[in-house]
Amino acid sequence: MNALVLGPDGPALRDIPQPSGEGEAQIRLRLGGICATDLELCKGYMGFQGVLGHEFVGVVEAAPAPEWVGQRVVGEINCPCGTCDTCRAGRPTHCPTRTVLGISGRDGAFSERFTLPVGNLHRVPEEVPDEVAVFVEPLAAALRILEQVQVQPTDLVVVFGAGRLGQLCARVLALTKARVHAVDRNRDRLALLPPEVIRGRPEERADLTVDCTGSPEGLSLAASLTRPRGTVVLKTTAHDIAPVPTAPWVIEELTVVGSRCGPFEPALRLLASGAVDPRPLISACRPLGEGVDALEMAANPAHLKVLLEP
Amino acid sequence: MNALVLGPDGPALRDIPQPSGEGEAQIRLRLGGICATDLELCKGYMGFQGVLGHEFVGVVEAAPAPEWVGQRVVGEINCPCGTCDTCRAGRPTHCPTRTVLGISGRDGAFSERFTLPVGNLHRVPEEVPDEVAVFVEPLAAALRILEQVQVQPTDLVVVFGAGRLGQLCARVLALTKARVHAVDRNRDRLALLPPEVIRGRPEERADLTVDCTGSPEGLSLAASLTRPRGTVVLKTTAHDIAPVPTAPWVIEELTVVGSRCGPFEPALRLLASGAVDPRPLISACRPLGEGVDALEMAANPAHLKVLLEP
Repeated sequence: MNALVLGPDGPALRDIPQPSGEGEAQIRLRLGGICATDLELCKGYMGFQGVLGHEFVGVVEAAPAPEWVGQRVVGEINCPCGTCDTCRAGRPTHCPTRTVLGISGRDGAFSERFTLPVGNLHRVPEEVPDEVAVFVEPLAAALRILEQVQVQPTDLVVVFGAGRLGQLCARVLALTKARVHAVDRNRDRLALLPPEVIRGRPEERADLTVDCTGSPEGLSLAASLTRPRGTVVLKTTAHDIAPVPTAPWVIEELTVVGSRCGPFEPALRLLASGAVDPRPLISACRPLGEGVDALEMAANPAHLKVLLEP
Repeated sequence: MNALVLGPDGPALRDIPQPSGEGEAQIRLRLGGICATDLELCKGYMGFQGVLGHEFVGVVEAAPAPEWVGQRVVGEINCPCGTCDTCRAGRPTHCPTRTVLGISGRDGAFSERFTLPVGNLHRVPEEVPDEVAVFVEPLAAALRILEQVQVQPTDLVVVFGAGRLGQLCARVLALTKARVHAVDRNRDRLALLPPEVIRGRPEERADLTVDCTGSPEGLSLAASLTRPRGTVVLKTTAHDIAPVPTAPWVIEELTVVGSRCGPFEPALRLLASGAVDPRPLISACRPLGEGVDALEMAANPAHLKVLLEP
C-alpha cells in the first residue's frame, strides 16, 4: 500500500502494510491536502516521523459502528485519551497524551488507507464535492478565530499573509461584515481573494489582526498595526524563536490569542452553503505517488493548496 | 522649590520654579511612592526627562473648580486630549497625544508642588491614611487585571514576581477566592504576602498567570506554566527585546493580555475597607531631599516600596 512517509532522511513514497487501527474506522483516501504544517514537519518540527497528512476526505471501509461504513467523511485530527484532567475539563484537543493525525504519534492520511476513531468523523453532505470537503480542517481552524474573538461588523480587521490559511481566515472574517484587509507581498495571492476582502494595509491601526505569515516576524508586525486594546490572533507556529518587543503590548494593552484547531460542523455548513468557496486556492492535484514532488510544489510560494489523490 | 528631576546625567535634586499648570489643580505633595517605572525611566525608558513621580497623595491648594481646594487627593496619571478618535472611542488612557505624570511630556509628583487636570483627581476618604492612599495608583493597576480577565473562584492563579506590583496583584487576585500562588526567588518578599497567598509554584499549570517579574524572561516563564487555553497577564514593561518562543502559544491556544493602568475608585474602596492592606510593602519613608538615595534604595531587591515626603 502506497504512503507518503516522513523518515529520518525526509519524505519518501513507501510501500507500507495496511494499518490495523483496532477499534477505529478504516478510511480509504479520496483526496488529501498539503498544509504548511506538513512542510514544517519535513523540516523537523515536532520531531514527527511516519505517514504525513491531516487534511483529507475519504470513505469509511470498515468501522466498529457499521452505520459509518460507506460514508464519505472528513475527520478531526486530535485523538484525545478522553479520561485525563484536560479532557474532563472540556479541552480534549489539548489532551497531553493525544495523538494527532500525521503530526504526532499517529500515521497520517497521505496513504491509500488509514484509520481514525469513529468519534472523530464527520459525514460530508452530498452537495460538497471532494475538492471542497478537503478544506474542512483548515477552514475549521479559520473559524476558530470567531470562537475566540468577538468580531463586530464595525471592526477593522487585517490578515497578514494571504497563503493557504490566510486566504481562509480572510474569507471567514469577511462573513462578519467587518472591514477585512489582507496583506501579502505576493500580488498573485491577493488576486485570489474574494472582492469583499480589501488588498493591502489600511491607513489606521486595526481592531483585530491575524498573523498567518508563517514567519517569526509576523507577530511583531501584526502587533504594531493593532490599535490600543486591540487583539492579535496568532496562527503562525514558526518554530524559530522570534524577537518580540513586548513592552508595547503592555503600554497599549494588546491581547494576543494563540489559535489552532476549530469546529468541523460549522465549517462543513459554510462549504455546503457556498458561503466560503475554497476552490480558488487549489494550485494543483497530484497523484499520491508523486507526493514528494507535490510537497516541493507546495513549498513554493507561487503555489497555495496542492492536493493529493491516490 | 525642591524637586527630584531626571536629567541627561540621571536623577538629581533641583530647585525649580513653582509650576503654573494653567487651568489645572495645584497640588502640594504629602507623600510619593517610587515605582519600578521610575527606576526604568532613570535607565532611559521612554526617553523621559523632567520631574519624576506618578504615585502620590497630596492636597489641592488651588484649582479652577473651588470645591477641590483643600481636598486630600490622589490622581490618575494619564492626561488625554479628550477629542481624538482614541479618546472618543472610550480609550482616553491610550490617547496618542496624552501626557503622563512623571512619565511622558509632563512633570511628575516628586516635587513640593505639581499640577494635574481636575478631572484626574479623586478625593481620598478620611479613613485612608497617606501611607495607604499613596498605593492607589499601583493598586488600580493590579485591579485592571480583574477588568480584563474573568477570574473564577475555582481558578488556579500564579503571580510571578513578588515585588511592588506582584504583591498588590497577588492580594487583589486572592480577593476572588481563586487559589493564588506567588513565585519569587526572594523569600523575604514572599514572607510579606498575606496568608491567603500560597508561596511557590503549584504542581499543575495554572488557569491564569501574571508576569510581574520586570524581567524580559518573565513572559516565557509564565506562559510555560499556564494550562492550555489559559491566560497570561503581562505587566512587565522590560524594554529589552525578549526571545519568546511563540509556537507553544498557538499549540496551547494561550491568551496573552497586556495590562497597564486601572480604576482608581475601586482601588480607593478596597483601601478604605481594609480589604487590601499595602502597608507591609513599605520599606522606608525618606525626605524628598534624599530622593536620589531613595531611588537607589528602591532599586535594591531587598526593598519594596520607598516613600518620599517633602
